[in-house]
Amino acid sequence: MGSYNYSMDVYITLDIGGTNTRCAVFSHGNLKPVEIKKIPTYIKDQKAEERIIQLIKQVWKDEYNVRGICAAAPGSIDISSGMVILAPNIPGWKNLKLRDILKENFETKIFINNDARLAAYGEWKQGAGVGHHTLLYFTISTGIGGGAIIQDTLLEGDFGIATEMGHVYLVDDGPLCGCGKRGHLEALASGTAIENYVNQKIKEGEKTSLAKGSSTKDVADAARKGDKLAIAAFNRAGFYLGRGIANYLHIFNPSCVIFGGGVAQSGELLFGPFKKSLKEHILSQKYLENLQIKNAMLGDDVGLIGALEYLKDRT
Amino acid sequence: MGSYNYSMDVYITLDIGGTNTRCAVFSHGNLKPVEIKKIPTYIKDQKAEERIIQLIKQVWKDEYNVRGICAAAPGSIDISSGMVILAPNIPGWKNLKLRDILKENFETKIFINNDARLAAYGEWKQGAGVGHHTLLYFTISTGIGGGAIIQDTLLEGDFGIATEMGHVYLVDDGPLCGCGKRGHLEALASGTAIENYVNQKIKEGEKTSLAKGSSTKDVADAARKGDKLAIAAFNRAGFYLGRGIANYLHIFNPSCVIFGGGVAQSGELLFGPFKKSLKEHILSQKYLENLQIKNAMLGDDVGLIGALEYLKDRT
Repeated sequence: MGSYNYSMDVYITLDIGGTNTRCAVFSHGNLKPVEIKKIPTYIKDQKAEERIIQLIKQVWKDEYNVRGICAAAPGSIDISSGMVILAPNIPGWKNLKLRDILKENFETKIFINNDARLAAYGEWKQGAGVGHHTLLYFTISTGIGGGAIIQDTLLEGDFGIATEMGHVYLVDDGPLCGCGKRGHLEALASGTAIENYVNQKIKEGEKTSLAKGSSTKDVADAARKGDKLAIAAFNRAGFYLGRGIANYLHIFNPSCVIFGGGVAQSGELLFGPFKKSLKEHILSQKYLENLQIKNAMLGDDVGLIGALEYLKDRT
Repeated sequence: MGSYNYSMDVYITLDIGGTNTRCAVFSHGNLKPVEIKKIPTYIKDQKAEERIIQLIKQVWKDEYNVRGICAAAPGSIDISSGMVILAPNIPGWKNLKLRDILKENFETKIFINNDARLAAYGEWKQGAGVGHHTLLYFTISTGIGGGAIIQDTLLEGDFGIATEMGHVYLVDDGPLCGCGKRGHLEALASGTAIENYVNQKIKEGEKTSLAKGSSTKDVADAARKGDKLAIAAFNRAGFYLGRGIANYLHIFNPSCVIFGGGVAQSGELLFGPFKKSLKEHILSQKYLENLQIKNAMLGDDVGLIGALEYLKDRT
């Protein structure tokens, strides 16, 4: 009705990573994309933003009525202006007005947001957090990111740089964080923190089956075989993760905490000491009574689905 | 119209403190109460909740159409059930179903909420936070309490025990907090923290004009006269307050932070070192660019006004 031409309502979402970028087209009411394309985010002699424009043009078909584009990007985003303040893993992405650049090329609503925050949104709407009103999501991999749903509202802050969940101080003069500060949760409980701890102890002469420069996966494998240093590294990460999450429970009183990211797949190696520490640090058992602690459900698609749900609620 | 009897729409609010309880009656559209009464919260041989019922009965007039009652109470409140989980300063207030008790006596909507959180609400609606969408409020006195407005929503959490802003871990093995845990912001930057630090240093033989057992006010007076220990005590509190608020800016990205409570009136003694520390600890100057740091405006009436605004938005 109203038009004799066939047109299909679609949403285009992007998950921009330090290595690869994926772009998906979703039709109305479907979580399975109509099309999905993956490219390296950055190659020599071409800017990442130019590659992204080409990628969107490749998936954009004439018969589409594109309701909107939402890009999940790593790093710090000013969502009010659609500017990437800093994405350390993508060359040249500092104070980059990504939304304006896309707007010059595509006539539709365009949103840029932080990847971990959109992941939180996706898990809330379609994953492990369905039905909860107040939940926290943490991704634990090389770093620690996160997002928060507060009484059915996505916490973004005044202009979008809220929920830097890994960058909170937990100790005096702690280990160096990727951001340059000391003693952050990320510097104590991420994969990088586990690896740095092992390397430091090897340097100090501690006995271990591990070689210098081992990956978090190597450390996990060694821990499962009984390597004491490897176990200590996970115990330490779990201890500080427990302290950090206790803080977040005191601040947010959520009914659900969801963990995603590679290191979160270490299972009891990390979550055993984590749960012990959480119980020790929590102000009152009340915070734990109705709390569900869950694994993320959406896997690698969490950014694309989160961006889709975000778009659907705003177009 | 609809009734020949004269009746006046009013809101009844209470500010329940460890020492005194105040009760105010507000007519529709007025911030100046029609009536206000103050009583000691607790006397021998009478329960605080019985005294509160009597107090409300005293102010409740036949000609009133009471739109609702809202009580600001200290401590941890389960707002979903209207239960005081624990108010350490009021004898017998542990798992006390205050809303149910009031409901048996008064036929109107009844709300119970945390005093610092309602203070945040009051400052947002009628005080230093008017016009902001995301703001934090901290009361710094013997303890540290607070509240948060997130994108125009009061953060209460799953059942009301969110925003325990003083009870977050900032250091390993820190000083003992009033809650029994170690290293919390409250144990590092409250009035009690300042007093305990001074007492500890006197015990260790440090030279000072201060006597053991000095109040925060005594310490402030001595600091203004140049006493080195007194200055060090405020520097230390300001340093940790800066670290704690940096964490909260990373988490919430507010456009306004409001400080209330007695210790917050120490001025530059506390806020000088606080601002220095905040700049040192902040992840990016972006968090500070549009940030307003303000003194609370509503003074002693903040609890009564906060409870009034909360009621008005929910009745």
